[in-house]
Amino acid sequence: MNMDTIAAISTAVGESGIAVIRVSGADAVKATAPLFRSRVDLNEAATHTVNYGHIIDPDTGEVMEESLVTVMKGPRSFTAEDVVEISTHGGIVAVKRVMELLLRRGTIRLAEPGEFTKRAFLNGRIDLTQAEAVMDLIRSKSDRAFSIALKQAEGSLSKKIKVLRHQLIELLAHIEVNIDYPEHDVTEMSNSFIRDQSTEVIGEIAQLLRTASEGKILREGIVTAIVGRPNVGKSSLLNALSQSNKAIVTDIPGTTRDVIEEFVTVKGIPLRLLDTAGIRETSDLVERIGVERSRTALGEADLIMLVLNNAEPLHEDEKELLKQLAGRQMIVILNKTDLPAQLSDEELGELVPEQAIVRMSVAEEKGMDQLEEAIASMFFSGKLESADMTYVSNVRHIALLKQAVRSLEDAIEATESGIPIDIVQIDVRTAWELLGEITGDSAGDSLIDQIFSQFCLGK
Amino acid sequence: MNMDTIAAISTAVGESGIAVIRVSGADAVKATAPLFRSRVDLNEAATHTVNYGHIIDPDTGEVMEESLVTVMKGPRSFTAEDVVEISTHGGIVAVKRVMELLLRRGTIRLAEPGEFTKRAFLNGRIDLTQAEAVMDLIRSKSDRAFSIALKQAEGSLSKKIKVLRHQLIELLAHIEVNIDYPEHDVTEMSNSFIRDQSTEVIGEIAQLLRTASEGKILREGIVTAIVGRPNVGKSSLLNALSQSNKAIVTDIPGTTRDVIEEFVTVKGIPLRLLDTAGIRETSDLVERIGVERSRTALGEADLIMLVLNNAEPLHEDEKELLKQLAGRQMIVILNKTDLPAQLSDEELGELVPEQAIVRMSVAEEKGMDQLEEAIASMFFSGKLESADMTYVSNVRHIALLKQAVRSLEDAIEATESGIPIDIVQIDVRTAWELLGEITGDSAGDSLIDQIFSQFCLGK
Repeated sequence: MNMDTIAAISTAVGESGIAVIRVSGADAVKATAPLFRSRVDLNEAATHTVNYGHIIDPDTGEVMEESLVTVMKGPRSFTAEDVVEISTHGGIVAVKRVMELLLRRGTIRLAEPGEFTKRAFLNGRIDLTQAEAVMDLIRSKSDRAFSIALKQAEGSLSKKIKVLRHQLIELLAHIEVNIDYPEHDVTEMSNSFIRDQSTEVIGEIAQLLRTASEGKILREGIVTAIVGRPNVGKSSLLNALSQSNKAIVTDIPGTTRDVIEEFVTVKGIPLRLLDTAGIRETSDLVERIGVERSRTALGEADLIMLVLNNAEPLHEDEKELLKQLAGRQMIVILNKTDLPAQLSDEELGELVPEQAIVRMSVAEEKGMDQLEEAIASMFFSGKLESADMTYVSNVRHIALLKQAVRSLEDAIEATESGIPIDIVQIDVRTAWELLGEITGDSAGDSLIDQIFSQFCLGK
Repeated sequence: MNMDTIAAISTAVGESGIAVIRVSGADAVKATAPLFRSRVDLNEAATHTVNYGHIIDPDTGEVMEESLVTVMKGPRSFTAEDVVEISTHGGIVAVKRVMELLLRRGTIRLAEPGEFTKRAFLNGRIDLTQAEAVMDLIRSKSDRAFSIALKQAEGSLSKKIKVLRHQLIELLAHIEVNIDYPEHDVTEMSNSFIRDQSTEVIGEIAQLLRTASEGKILREGIVTAIVGRPNVGKSSLLNALSQSNKAIVTDIPGTTRDVIEEFVTVKGIPLRLLDTAGIRETSDLVERIGVERSRTALGEADLIMLVLNNAEPLHEDEKELLKQLAGRQMIVILNKTDLPAQLSDEELGELVPEQAIVRMSVAEEKGMDQLEEAIASMFFSGKLESADMTYVSNVRHIALLKQAVRSLEDAIEATESGIPIDIVQIDVRTAWELLGEITGDSAGDSLIDQIFSQFCLGK
């Protein structure tokens, strides 16, 4: 654990009014003060005050930038350490020259991705689920995903996990007594107690896991691949769904080569749309790379939108594709219904169930409602749960919860097969530790490093 | 002049640690306070303090975001009005939901581009050259351009213009006396005074204008088109100069279709490089659009880098291009010198002066130094001026300075041809007003609107 002083640009880089550089650590104020020419000496500045002045090169005295500098003394800061925030002009050069001055100080180094949040965690201000929620907040693409992450950031999931762990520690204490005083001979009672307690915790975890797939979808979006032969209208469909002109649309088959990605929200459901190159045999090298990428996108998609051309008979490639995709979550879009039908309903009906077919004309903007309905009904059988619910959306949390269930099931099975109670104890303790990994109470350094390395720089 | 309360996202939008929303106007604090749940009532918060709390929906009480809110009371703020800055999580959703809450207040509206800076100007905190410098600071692409803009933001140009205007107002006063008391009959003396004073001001403006082309180059970069036949190595050259892999390079002629742009700095000189589609007749529609765009880029470029292939004889298209480009600022790059020469020196020598030719091998990274030298010597005959100099880089300022020179020349000419002094006065007054337009002292509303509309949102 290296708690030296770190700095990073915390706002997105681009042409903008302002940008913010954050400095955190024991030396944050002392190292920044000589760079700041102002009525106020930064060393004397009161906590949580904003100070106007100029950033200067301390070697030459040259004015390098005009800035507002905020001091927030630990532990009343994001990292729980001393924090200095320097608000500069937006754009690239301003942040670059201020960062260079900071890093030249010698006592400040560039922060690693997620290092500010990691320090908040290591300093005990937040636990691991809360830290992970910070990243979810930043990455969230829909209002609902943000609300869920915000609740997690405030500790809603931690609280549930802590209750479950408390139940397990009580169970472990009970087992401990039984091991230490075997003369009490309360085995029978213990077995039923282990079974009951474990079953209860399993039930509560199952409750949490029921929110998982919905939570994950709300967080990451449904990966949706738009596939089909060249020139059936895939790019037009992407543009229609996203109400943009992101994909270049021409009459020329093979116009799309790269996989184009767009995030859209359909009836509150976030979709990560992938527009792909039309799948066909081609001699064009660049297009061939595109077709390869289409197939990869197809493999990874949660939902497939296969676009067919109503004005052409079903092609052998399409029949082949339909067979390959059997059993996948799929919507078949019969596009160009404004043109005379050449694709027979019987033929299609043999390959696709009627409820999976949406007939539409993207060009005439017909059938979009039906498509949106089909997407919604496919993913939410019931209504969305109440906003007060705690969602589990993080894959890491889901995996740990499932493992904890398995350990507790092992414990129940072991008691039932008469396995000695000190062996059973191991399963219960494992479940307790797995839950602790979620909040970070029992997480190792390498896990923690791995989690924070996925963060963006400056957070 | 509508001085209601405005709000905008002031940081760049993207995945980042934090984002900042700025609110400015008489109602900024009062309208934001009910959205902020904290230990501190925002209405009571001291100026220049940062306050931790939650942004809530005042209708439902729902927590919408966790934020740091800074209050800066006018006139000690960027706009000289009351300013509230809300620091939220980065990403799209956080800023969107906070902005929505603010705009729902009724007394806050979305700021127009540049409106915060415009208010700083309208409230008399800065003049027009300083306001324009703010945008230059944000857009600057090189350290030197930033330094020049920063000096302008601090008022260096304004000061010079004010001195010149003061000289002209003295001259006008002198003329005024002459008109009001013609009985003094000091015409002869006046004429020489007008000539001397005008000549002096013209000389000082000329001094400023000498910095103009260099200033403009430092600010905007030299627009540099890389042109040539397909597959001579244009994209490789772009990648080599920018030390990136931005342009896709393959052996296939016609790989580049869009005009790819990259900003690079060569020996301190900023170049806006445009990599273009190889110019050739083609039947491929998309490539043909690309070739069209190449020709447009060629027309607009300040500098042309024509790439030729040393390993192929000079093509008719290239001879044609060389003739078309005669008289333009051009560097002819003879690429692929690692391969046996097929292009004869005599033939090339007839079309291009030797000093404009750079022989190199991009693939073997040979000749880059010579190319950089050629670019530098082409643009800076002398050394860069001292850092203390005031540069004029803004096209608007340049145009006004040139017009002022013309008016003063008219005044001198008029006195010499014996035109009555009250007519001469008009020319001097015009020059005085033109200089006032630079600082905004005599700028009309529509000019001011136009200047600020070029700003980015949130500044």
